[in-house]
Amino acid sequence: MSIRVAVVGGAGYIGGELLRLLLLHPRVEVAAVTSTRLAGRRIDGSHPNLRGLTDQRFLAPEHLSDYDVAFLAMRHTETMGWLTRHSGLAKLVIDLSADFRLRDPAVFQRYYGLPHDTPGALDSFVYGLPELHRAELRGADRIAVPGCTAAAAILALHPLAAGDLITGRVVVDARTGSSGAGAGAGEQNLHAERSGAMRVFAPVGHRHEAEISQETGRTVTMTATGFEAVRGVQVVCHVALREGVDEMAVRRAYRHHYQDERFVRVVAAKRGNYRFPEPKILSGSNLCDVGFATGTGLGTADAAIAVGALDNLMKGGAGNAVQCMNLRMGWPEELGLTFPGLHPI
Amino acid sequence: MSIRVAVVGGAGYIGGELLRLLLLHPRVEVAAVTSTRLAGRRIDGSHPNLRGLTDQRFLAPEHLSDYDVAFLAMRHTETMGWLTRHSGLAKLVIDLSADFRLRDPAVFQRYYGLPHDTPGALDSFVYGLPELHRAELRGADRIAVPGCTAAAAILALHPLAAGDLITGRVVVDARTGSSGAGAGAGEQNLHAERSGAMRVFAPVGHRHEAEISQETGRTVTMTATGFEAVRGVQVVCHVALREGVDEMAVRRAYRHHYQDERFVRVVAAKRGNYRFPEPKILSGSNLCDVGFATGTGLGTADAAIAVGALDNLMKGGAGNAVQCMNLRMGWPEELGLTFPGLHPI
Amino acid sequence: MSIRVAVVGGAGYIGGELLRLLLLHPRVEVAAVTSTRLAGRRIDGSHPNLRGLTDQRFLAPEHLSDYDVAFLAMRHTETMGWLTRHSGLAKLVIDLSADFRLRDPAVFQRYYGLPHDTPGALDSFVYGLPELHRAELRGADRIAVPGCTAAAAILALHPLAAGDLITGRVVVDARTGSSGAGAGAGEQNLHAERSGAMRVFAPVGHRHEAEISQETGRTVTMTATGFEAVRGVQVVCHVALREGVDEMAVRRAYRHHYQDERFVRVVAAKRGNYRFPEPKILSGSNLCDVGFATGTGLGTADAAIAVGALDNLMKGGAGNAVQCMNLRMGWPEELGLTFPGLHPI
Amino acid sequence: MSIRVAVVGGAGYIGGELLRLLLLHPRVEVAAVTSTRLAGRRIDGSHPNLRGLTDQRFLAPEHLSDYDVAFLAMRHTETMGWLTRHSGLAKLVIDLSADFRLRDPAVFQRYYGLPHDTPGALDSFVYGLPELHRAELRGADRIAVPGCTAAAAILALHPLAAGDLITGRVVVDARTGSSGAGAGAGEQNLHAERSGAMRVFAPVGHRHEAEISQETGRTVTMTATGFEAVRGVQVVCHVALREGVDEMAVRRAYRHHYQDERFVRVVAAKRGNYRFPEPKILSGSNLCDVGFATGTGLGTADAAIAVGALDNLMKGGAGNAVQCMNLRMGWPEELGLTFPGLHPI
Repeated sequence: MSIRVAVVGGAGYIGGELLRLLLLHPRVEVAAVTSTRLAGRRIDGSHPNLRGLTDQRFLAPEHLSDYDVAFLAMRHTETMGWLTRHSGLAKLVIDLSADFRLRDPAVFQRYYGLPHDTPGALDSFVYGLPELHRAELRGADRIAVPGCTAAAAILALHPLAAGDLITGRVVVDARTGSSGAGAGAGEQNLHAERSGAMRVFAPVGHRHEAEISQETGRTVTMTATGFEAVRGVQVVCHVALREGVDEMAVRRAYRHHYQDERFVRVVAAKRGNYRFPEPKILSGSNLCDVGFATGTGLGTADAAIAVGALDNLMKGGAGNAVQCMNLRMGWPEELGLTFPGLHPI
Repeated sequence: MSIRVAVVGGAGYIGGELLRLLLLHPRVEVAAVTSTRLAGRRIDGSHPNLRGLTDQRFLAPEHLSDYDVAFLAMRHTETMGWLTRHSGLAKLVIDLSADFRLRDPAVFQRYYGLPHDTPGALDSFVYGLPELHRAELRGADRIAVPGCTAAAAILALHPLAAGDLITGRVVVDARTGSSGAGAGAGEQNLHAERSGAMRVFAPVGHRHEAEISQETGRTVTMTATGFEAVRGVQVVCHVALREGVDEMAVRRAYRHHYQDERFVRVVAAKRGNYRFPEPKILSGSNLCDVGFATGTGLGTADAAIAVGALDNLMKGGAGNAVQCMNLRMGWPEELGLTFPGLHPI
Repeated sequence: MSIRVAVVGGAGYIGGELLRLLLLHPRVEVAAVTSTRLAGRRIDGSHPNLRGLTDQRFLAPEHLSDYDVAFLAMRHTETMGWLTRHSGLAKLVIDLSADFRLRDPAVFQRYYGLPHDTPGALDSFVYGLPELHRAELRGADRIAVPGCTAAAAILALHPLAAGDLITGRVVVDARTGSSGAGAGAGEQNLHAERSGAMRVFAPVGHRHEAEISQETGRTVTMTATGFEAVRGVQVVCHVALREGVDEMAVRRAYRHHYQDERFVRVVAAKRGNYRFPEPKILSGSNLCDVGFATGTGLGTADAAIAVGALDNLMKGGAGNAVQCMNLRMGWPEELGLTFPGLHPI
Repeated sequence: MSIRVAVVGGAGYIGGELLRLLLLHPRVEVAAVTSTRLAGRRIDGSHPNLRGLTDQRFLAPEHLSDYDVAFLAMRHTETMGWLTRHSGLAKLVIDLSADFRLRDPAVFQRYYGLPHDTPGALDSFVYGLPELHRAELRGADRIAVPGCTAAAAILALHPLAAGDLITGRVVVDARTGSSGAGAGAGEQNLHAERSGAMRVFAPVGHRHEAEISQETGRTVTMTATGFEAVRGVQVVCHVALREGVDEMAVRRAYRHHYQDERFVRVVAAKRGNYRFPEPKILSGSNLCDVGFATGTGLGTADAAIAVGALDNLMKGGAGNAVQCMNLRMGWPEELGLTFPGLHPI
């Protein structure tokens, strides 16, 4: 018995990735995929990797009816109003926009530049990171999937923050692939301009900073740089360890938090090309690799870094959303999410 | 009930890809993985994408016993002698080297520069391309998996050659990613030299030329160029159409040969970024996309091209080998091979 | 004493490259740079590599007066009409569009899909390839700079065609970087779609085919594929040698034609990563590297390839245009064009 | 009148870049280029971009005589001993290794893992950054050229550090291209492993950290990551502003220090793809672009970043070395260094 699922906003990169996962998911029937601009056109025209998997066509959003689960892959700041008008859409709504991630409407306004449409609805959403909120997600009807760099940074920092092993401000250096800008991106994402680039596009005050602060309880300053990859996020979080905290304590904290997590691997080896989290080998997988290194032993005893890497469209988006659905439905979290990534690539 | 499988030469790129597929294959137990150089070391030290999937270690080849299936991922010209000494290794041997692909030992010698060790054994191997040799593969105990560019070119040309739609020499322009050179490659594959390159490394007489000639029955000249991708092969085959053959006849031939093939998609659309076969979106998939275009309507009425694209480690190597195993075992050919590729990537 | 030069259409990639060369040229004063869209805006806003070299601003085209030399870097099919209306613009007009490259208006119409505005003007233009037309260019007042892949293919084929060493049709396989599509390119050139691609965008009948036919006197069929590079064109030309022509005769022909050419290097070595023309190391240089290989000695005695590589914005555009200006002015051809390219890159 | 120059260790990437600059330098004669491994072989066999510029061959180091200037492009930790044995080599020695950059032998030992051979010689070297040490360099006979990431970070931080605008520890996030590992690099730099990577290779304690601390007088912790580019370094330096320091004060400091510098551009614009320093457009140029952004106006009023970018083989190596020579010889600093970089690339 399959559940009936809708993808609202299915023509973009996150929409395509949701479809790749859902079309191959053993307990899901893709009942509707909407696109305002491409209504009536074949889905595999936008997502060439789905050729042979589906001959469905995009639906105009006005033809939506009701579903077991609806994934919303719409623009930031447009989703909140839309959802109010379509509140009966589905029993379980999983939103991939930023509109319902922040609990404090004042913080939302500061980072997104406009007041929230429905601040009263914020409390009805659970932040969709199973590794931190598994219990609440089991009962959630509305889930807000984290931003891609936020997911990486929160998972990288969580053992340090939860264990109170660090002190002071956290500096996050985030590097993001070009698919984060979306399928409709303009001249700034032309290949000739973006290829091989290392573009500091958000020197201070990147929006995901607010999510990281919310989930770690730390003051965070974040700088974001676009790098060559199409997919992939890597964060390097610079922290100061509390006095007395050494590398062994740090390692213990990571092991403790993640040893039973299916989608988080602790990667902090002594040697090898992949001894720290590397987004390159995670494309298509739902994994978040996290690691760490400390300066203990050098002059700067208290300096440490936490590193996180993931595929922004997977654990940083569509994959994590499907994991949340699986969790909410009582299914194994890894259902439809077992692709391990490629090497070399 | 699983069958017991060995991978001989498991430390290279093809070996790693075999392991990715076999560790997740529902009817296979990976019983042994050998590496002379890395015996005793963890497998996921060489293949970081397998972290969490296996904690097995490489075995020295001398500890091999007997298996249901053995995949040989050893060097060209070294496999033929080795196999003679280990002929009892497995009921089904699937060789990924070039040693048993060519039926004519004289052709082997011309292209590989030395006489074949065991010319008498050549006949016992079936050329491992299910789309051309399905019936024989069902009964084969020894299978020689095609070279990567050969597989792409043969599948691209097959409808034209089998239908006798073309005349004269076939010119194949092959573009290959850097993983084809293997994990032990030297200075010529340094990133600083190879990145962004378009390197004509085999201007005439590439070895896979011989396979393409053998399987299509045509005189073939092939030029091979290394391009930026890590994975991926694309071939553009320039042909002359027989008089009276038009684009519709060509399209019909492709449809006829491939409409029931799980792993060959005919891609020849009017527009879009992916209207012809593009290796970029095939990474990790076992698909071979094939397409064509004709000059009919222009001045050069008889000029046509056939295009093929695949992932050299998958349909051009490990994936195709697993497909052959599935076929030989009487299982669905797509078992363990359903990953459709990513977009964007 | 400097001459006064105008660049009409200075906001695009070719325009920017012209400006880089002209601003540093010892005998040129850049008197005007136009852009309809960006009139009044700083030039280095569009061309960040020119920061510190100029604080000029774009001029609206209607403010053009008269100049010693005008470079036209406007769109194909728009230049011909515009030039009629601005015929007094400059003593020497060097056009980088396709509008005046073809001598036969019927061929123009077939390849560009519309009749030529001013077929009578075609004869007043000299095809701007100094290596083939040096004598005429010395006296030319109107010069049509070749298309990028055309320049590469013509220079690669010229010794074979001029010496009548080949027979039959020439098949050109052209690979082009993404900057060829221009600074205003749309979704098809998004980084996420174009990165790492090998996109067959003109399977048959590419427009530059007509120029190659015109200049070599051969029937040419050309397939064009976009590859990873931002800059760079490589052509592999598949030819059949006349009976009796061997590799030594081919080598002699290349040496004969190019030994005194400043901007053509014959590259056909026995080994090394760069033994054949590689566009990667030509970025920013005005060089065209050409090479060859023959199948003599293999079964296919008459098969040969000619390879050419250049930077599409330089020898395939702006650099070649400046070389033409230098030649026309009686200056050393290499003035302002001595940058040799980078390695590694 | 030219001076006679030797390049000791001319087969590597830095050596090749020195040669590109010196062969085209108007006042220099390249009198000797050594390579132990390639003595007797043509120089353009290693540096294909120099084809047509030189037909010189590598000399064995034992055949060195005496020169006006010697550039040493040898390995770290091997140069110090070698120079002791060849102290009469040249009037002016410009060393591109790390052996004479640090004034404190104890710091050298901590970062390079062995005691310095000739600690007494350290004082005879001037740190080769004209923007900080112009006066001393005018009289120097021994110059130690900075490390690539060090040069970028020091130039980015200098206005803040010299003006005492910052407080506390400086966190440097450095991203480096693959050419930094050199032409002889091994498996870790294979294209298949390194392409598209974001590899944290020095999580704490990178060696250039010591130079940055020395030149800025700050406690520095540095993390280094390898990114896709072949050439290019970018540093993002996270700092805390002293109370009362605002964005305007920061801007003033940058302008003050760099308004008259030929090779440092202050890049901190409001919009555009290149509003912050981007290494991509600096390949081949001797420029270091520096920029900054502050959090003033956001909640984190005291957070700021300083960004620097350069070509590691140019301003981070060979180009800077030539600038030092020019300065020492009393020539214009820009002699032979006017290439402005390419866009797009």
